[in-house]
Amino acid sequence: MPTSSSPPKSTAENTISGGLYEEDGWVWAQIKAEARRDAESEPALASYLYSTILSHSSLERSISFHLGNKLCSSTLLSTLLYDLFLNAFSSDHALLSATVADLRAARERDPACVSYSHCLLNYKGFLACQAHRVAHRLWQQSRRPLALALQSRIADVFAVDIHPAARIGKGILFDHATGVVVGETAVIGNNVSILHHVTLGGTGKVGGDRHPKIGDGVLIGAGATILGNVKIGEGAKIGAGSVVLIDVPPRTTAVGNPARLVGGKEKPSKHEDVPGESMDHTSFISEWSDYII
Amino acid sequence: MPTSSSPPKSTAENTISGGLYEEDGWVWAQIKAEARRDAESEPALASYLYSTILSHSSLERSISFHLGNKLCSSTLLSTLLYDLFLNAFSSDHALLSATVADLRAARERDPACVSYSHCLLNYKGFLACQAHRVAHRLWQQSRRPLALALQSRIADVFAVDIHPAARIGKGILFDHATGVVVGETAVIGNNVSILHHVTLGGTGKVGGDRHPKIGDGVLIGAGATILGNVKIGEGAKIGAGSVVLIDVPPRTTAVGNPARLVGGKEKPSKHEDVPGESMDHTSFISEWSDYII
Amino acid sequence: MPTSSSPPKSTAENTISGGLYEEDGWVWAQIKAEARRDAESEPALASYLYSTILSHSSLERSISFHLGNKLCSSTLLSTLLYDLFLNAFSSDHALLSATVADLRAARERDPACVSYSHCLLNYKGFLACQAHRVAHRLWQQSRRPLALALQSRIADVFAVDIHPAARIGKGILFDHATGVVVGETAVIGNNVSILHHVTLGGTGKVGGDRHPKIGDGVLIGAGATILGNVKIGEGAKIGAGSVVLIDVPPRTTAVGNPARLVGGKEKPSKHEDVPGESMDHTSFISEWSDYII
Amino acid sequence: MPTSSSPPKSTAENTISGGLYEEDGWVWAQIKAEARRDAESEPALASYLYSTILSHSSLERSISFHLGNKLCSSTLLSTLLYDLFLNAFSSDHALLSATVADLRAARERDPACVSYSHCLLNYKGFLACQAHRVAHRLWQQSRRPLALALQSRIADVFAVDIHPAARIGKGILFDHATGVVVGETAVIGNNVSILHHVTLGGTGKVGGDRHPKIGDGVLIGAGATILGNVKIGEGAKIGAGSVVLIDVPPRTTAVGNPARLVGGKEKPSKHEDVPGESMDHTSFISEWSDYII
Amino acid sequence: MPTSSSPPKSTAENTISGGLYEEDGWVWAQIKAEARRDAESEPALASYLYSTILSHSSLERSISFHLGNKLCSSTLLSTLLYDLFLNAFSSDHALLSATVADLRAARERDPACVSYSHCLLNYKGFLACQAHRVAHRLWQQSRRPLALALQSRIADVFAVDIHPAARIGKGILFDHATGVVVGETAVIGNNVSILHHVTLGGTGKVGGDRHPKIGDGVLIGAGATILGNVKIGEGAKIGAGSVVLIDVPPRTTAVGNPARLVGGKEKPSKHEDVPGESMDHTSFISEWSDYII
Amino acid sequence: MPTSSSPPKSTAENTISGGLYEEDGWVWAQIKAEARRDAESEPALASYLYSTILSHSSLERSISFHLGNKLCSSTLLSTLLYDLFLNAFSSDHALLSATVADLRAARERDPACVSYSHCLLNYKGFLACQAHRVAHRLWQQSRRPLALALQSRIADVFAVDIHPAARIGKGILFDHATGVVVGETAVIGNNVSILHHVTLGGTGKVGGDRHPKIGDGVLIGAGATILGNVKIGEGAKIGAGSVVLIDVPPRTTAVGNPARLVGGKEKPSKHEDVPGESMDHTSFISEWSDYII
Repeated sequence: MPTSSSPPKSTAENTISGGLYEEDGWVWAQIKAEARRDAESEPALASYLYSTILSHSSLERSISFHLGNKLCSSTLLSTLLYDLFLNAFSSDHALLSATVADLRAARERDPACVSYSHCLLNYKGFLACQAHRVAHRLWQQSRRPLALALQSRIADVFAVDIHPAARIGKGILFDHATGVVVGETAVIGNNVSILHHVTLGGTGKVGGDRHPKIGDGVLIGAGATILGNVKIGEGAKIGAGSVVLIDVPPRTTAVGNPARLVGGKEKPSKHEDVPGESMDHTSFISEWSDYII
Repeated sequence: MPTSSSPPKSTAENTISGGLYEEDGWVWAQIKAEARRDAESEPALASYLYSTILSHSSLERSISFHLGNKLCSSTLLSTLLYDLFLNAFSSDHALLSATVADLRAARERDPACVSYSHCLLNYKGFLACQAHRVAHRLWQQSRRPLALALQSRIADVFAVDIHPAARIGKGILFDHATGVVVGETAVIGNNVSILHHVTLGGTGKVGGDRHPKIGDGVLIGAGATILGNVKIGEGAKIGAGSVVLIDVPPRTTAVGNPARLVGGKEKPSKHEDVPGESMDHTSFISEWSDYII
Repeated sequence: MPTSSSPPKSTAENTISGGLYEEDGWVWAQIKAEARRDAESEPALASYLYSTILSHSSLERSISFHLGNKLCSSTLLSTLLYDLFLNAFSSDHALLSATVADLRAARERDPACVSYSHCLLNYKGFLACQAHRVAHRLWQQSRRPLALALQSRIADVFAVDIHPAARIGKGILFDHATGVVVGETAVIGNNVSILHHVTLGGTGKVGGDRHPKIGDGVLIGAGATILGNVKIGEGAKIGAGSVVLIDVPPRTTAVGNPARLVGGKEKPSKHEDVPGESMDHTSFISEWSDYII
Repeated sequence: MPTSSSPPKSTAENTISGGLYEEDGWVWAQIKAEARRDAESEPALASYLYSTILSHSSLERSISFHLGNKLCSSTLLSTLLYDLFLNAFSSDHALLSATVADLRAARERDPACVSYSHCLLNYKGFLACQAHRVAHRLWQQSRRPLALALQSRIADVFAVDIHPAARIGKGILFDHATGVVVGETAVIGNNVSILHHVTLGGTGKVGGDRHPKIGDGVLIGAGATILGNVKIGEGAKIGAGSVVLIDVPPRTTAVGNPARLVGGKEKPSKHEDVPGESMDHTSFISEWSDYII
Repeated sequence: MPTSSSPPKSTAENTISGGLYEEDGWVWAQIKAEARRDAESEPALASYLYSTILSHSSLERSISFHLGNKLCSSTLLSTLLYDLFLNAFSSDHALLSATVADLRAARERDPACVSYSHCLLNYKGFLACQAHRVAHRLWQQSRRPLALALQSRIADVFAVDIHPAARIGKGILFDHATGVVVGETAVIGNNVSILHHVTLGGTGKVGGDRHPKIGDGVLIGAGATILGNVKIGEGAKIGAGSVVLIDVPPRTTAVGNPARLVGGKEKPSKHEDVPGESMDHTSFISEWSDYII
Repeated sequence: MPTSSSPPKSTAENTISGGLYEEDGWVWAQIKAEARRDAESEPALASYLYSTILSHSSLERSISFHLGNKLCSSTLLSTLLYDLFLNAFSSDHALLSATVADLRAARERDPACVSYSHCLLNYKGFLACQAHRVAHRLWQQSRRPLALALQSRIADVFAVDIHPAARIGKGILFDHATGVVVGETAVIGNNVSILHHVTLGGTGKVGGDRHPKIGDGVLIGAGATILGNVKIGEGAKIGAGSVVLIDVPPRTTAVGNPARLVGGKEKPSKHEDVPGESMDHTSFISEWSDYII
């Protein structure tokens, strides 16, 4: 039943022919049901909802249409971009699977995300990330000028600047997203949450592996700047506004400018939860204050 | 005489049928006079000035036209948005009254603001704030999908991301504005000045009241991040780049990452002026330096 | 031979009638060769490359076309802007000369910049800077309303907000660029590199000379905020996320919030290289850590 | 019940506060019901139907939106035109009343007109006529430059060129409409049907009353050219391809190039029906052939 | 060899798996070769040629892109139309086969048609006909509201008004095409040539079979009006400006207003050639003059 | 004084350095004065008038801007067309001189033409003719694909289809203009007036010189079709709806379908005036009737 509010469980046993595809279908059915409900209650928005969601037969068509119309310009036509996105999403199921994981990440972690369709239509971080995945695929296929042109459109339209070579996992939440910069050799694991104004930047003018590596389940607070080929361990937490130039061990918290580990360099405090999923930005406040002052 | 440079005094005795409306009229007359002067001196800009200002019979029509054309997209047409804005501004005089207060705030507090029309046409913080007020009105009328679609357009076009549920007072200056993020349960008082890259953010993935409350007359410097349901007292000042996770008492200054009160937690220094109006970003420098080092 | 990979040497003896013009021609020939190669390898991008580069007879036509189409809106038509840009670039060779210097800066300093055409087409910092130069020229010609309207379009489209009165040298790299704010009385020297989210801001609501002066060869890291009429000496380096309210002597490094000089206020460490060109963001890490902790 | 297929009878007793307004409401309800049915059966068209019809609260808003978006150009924005149309339709009920009469004329007389909404959305003759009525109103208000600009847009977009001074009655069917030309001093009565390529043209270069006067109930076949201040009597019929330079008495038929009266100049045959309503283009064939050969 | 100037012979033995598909491929290769040559010689047009032809992998993609961008409007987006066209051309090979036959008809019969690509890009009659074929397919699939919306866009953009129910054969040349009107129950055979301003119109307001039936190889001169369910026999010729209300036997010529058969009603002259292919508009002049005067 | 209503006399002695250029200047001054007056009286149109006329420094810039914005499409950008037009008008003064002569022709011969600016902005026949002149220049420069693309845009936008090879004189009035078709080898002299739906067409499918030659001062009535390489002598008049397949001697009138000379083939009546200038469409009526019946 598409309008049921709890999705099918996503277990390790799910195979592509079974669970994962089933999950995609469930999310798409939810999106259509939400859009139908909203179109009925708000006629002024119905045209928008039909053109972006309700007229489409699949999630890949819907998102290709939406991205094509968002990212087009007078010199890069929407029809060209639509074709490009649709071809990518149709040829490579992993893209759509990541899209669905990101939709679920937004819905579960962001209390302001009231529906899947809200994220699909309105979240610039979500949209930038999906467009990046297509740009990354083009990069891997050695279609680099096209990948770079796409990066540029994403940077103009969403103010999110991700190099097409950067590798990004699934279940990612780019919350608010304005100003995010992710460099060429950066790697982001699964189930990571990154707030706006976050930089995963390089060092110097020499090429090579020079950007951060972010482990699974990491949470990076607003305005954090992480520079250089440093390793942020899985489940680590980076405080808002931090400037991180060092490795951060798994399940520890780094804060401040320059960032230091909460609990001290030698024996940093370890937390139990997965901050990329719990989105707990501030529980370390008292601890931090104690540490600093 | 519309081109006189000093507006009618806005006193407590002003009533809606008298002073406030009169003030709106004075500002609109100024705007038209400025635009007329600019159109005459710069023919290349005259078409723009006529379409946005000089062809309109009222400020609400002018700003509805301007916002409709700025925020439209291929799937949300300018005619629809124009209608939406015009209907809001025409039905609810408080909206226009806030618009006028914001125009005056920019004109008085920002030395780079050379005229009311300059602010009306060119200030993305001003425009984002007016569009937010309409989105907020839709939110209150339970037209939430439309309010969220509007938020998304504002975030794409101006890179200013304000949740439509956030409550914002009058006489607000969002200076430069790029990257501002204001969360769902945030409240901003009157006569507040907020620089670019400022975040009034939430904590964690649980809903409920989770964003900052900003008192009247507060000044928040560029890049400041205020997280959680903390209270920034009236007339307080938040230094640029600060990360604030604590309450800040009225007329005190918080600086640093993490932010501490200038003068110390126990007995912070109190200032006399209203920083949201005086826009004094840096007079605390020496004091601060003393405090820190 | 246009496709040769090493440009003519740019020496002090180059005169306008000789070397500089020759250099412009060399860069334009490179750009055309790159675009031709990309159009051949990627038919989906060929239309874009022909309309922006290959159909044009000169760099000034190409960039005027590109900026006109990028910055236009429904009320400021592309034809008007194209005319404005082309007229400026054609009348004032210094503009084009600065454009070429900026292209070379990006190509030399940013390892992600794979070609001149990539920068010309896709770098929002580069494009914002060229458009600013035209706005600055209008400002100097007392065509201020038009200059301000242009600033507003640049701020909307690229999220880069530079006051048209600000003076900017040559060989500038605005890397990533989202969120950069440069105030009215700011001055930026030659061969400066500025990362995204950098603010060169004012203080208070009084007019007059109130913004930073950035010397030649300075490097300003991501998210740095420099406020007030302070002087950042030539070859200085400002760490990412720093909040700078003080003068920084030549060839020294300022870091932190509030920023302090590495090596101490009295006898700060001096570095040898020109950080605006070497782009070394992080070599001071160990030194800094030692200093702070 | 809006979806009932027979409209309220339009009798002489209908007053504006009663029957006519009621009829308008009935037609609008039909249009919405048709559009809703079509949107349900054809999701690809639903966005179009919502934006043009289903999102609007009245026929005047719907048609103003549709005309504004059809007739706009890069120099005459849709928001401006929408405003102009909406203001006209809202201030002058006679306009809407004529619109409704035209919708009914198309529905009753054109067997290819399957619904009111089909006419409203797709019939260029219908749309050109409604836009002309607004242009005519502007002409009467001495807003001539605007009226002429509107005429030009109608001529470009619909290839229907009606001078804004021309007076046109109600219940008009411009069938197919491409190439229709109606001159400045032409007058068209009520319940007239005019096929495509019809010219009501002037003579010579002298101003003054110089165009045809078309009586009530006239039918003018495709490609007919009527020149000069001649009078086409009520219920007359003009054969396709005729060139008419003479008065045509009521209820007679003129055919040929140059046109002659069927039955002869002295005692032309009179027909009983109202050809503008019966749309009988060809029943005179045998009669004509007899006459000619 | 694609640039060879003589196409493979199209013989009766050609089967779909062999000759016809081969022929399609030959024409598409020609088109690409022509476009490549033109792009090289005219850089100002190269962007246009790449976006419309050279970036596409097949003729169906090229024409779907071109029609989608030509026929789109602010309420019917190009991406939607592109999808619609591409889906039709991809599902039904007969459509593409007719397109190729029409391209060859233009190239062979119109001396002003200098290349296949010229016809594909620039001939409004050709483009209107291909778009009609897709509208006709929608009509047959009972997607009538969409078919009618498409007819309306074709009528607006190309001033060619063909009812989607009309049946049209292959190898059709609509030369110049402005003002062509083809009614609901009209049928047009194969290898027909129809000049501009031609009407195949109905009679009266009663539905049913009421439009002309045009046989194979017919030529209809400019401005001819054919009304009613009359039969124009194969290889017949209709003189320019004729008004035809009678059947015309095969291989005879009808001229005049009203049209009569050249040679007389009883024993009209028969010609040998196929006028729809020979395009001989005027050889009957002497004969005609003799007949008339 | 630019607003004076009588232009400088255009005499035979006028040389390019003197009179003709002076006349151009006088007309441009008139146009600006008219536009200024209209902008003042109609603020809703002022933006349009500034962008098309008042912001431009010369007539060639104004018309290049206007044509570029009228004829552009999503695949042929306005900036490209503007450049093309401006370059043509700036390089070849004969173009502008013809433009001015056409403006005067419309103003003098068409009683509905109330001002020069009305013609410049709104007359599709005038605009199509100026754009054709540029296409013709490209054709002569062997830039044929571009010339044909321009023809196609003119045919789409104005429904006026003139082959770029056709040669057209000065002082031309295309009145109403919809549906005009002019073939490849047609020639039109000076001071000719051509109404809408006029065809100067070819015969058959063989190339070579196959279209009409129209002498100076000819008037061709609405819907006339002239086919083949026939000669219409200077000062001749072609009646509306005529089908002309024969030469027409100077200062005679041809009418009817097929057209015959008024006064008879042997000794046709000669008229004294220049009908292309007097625009007398119908004075031959009585004569004609006598002749025919």
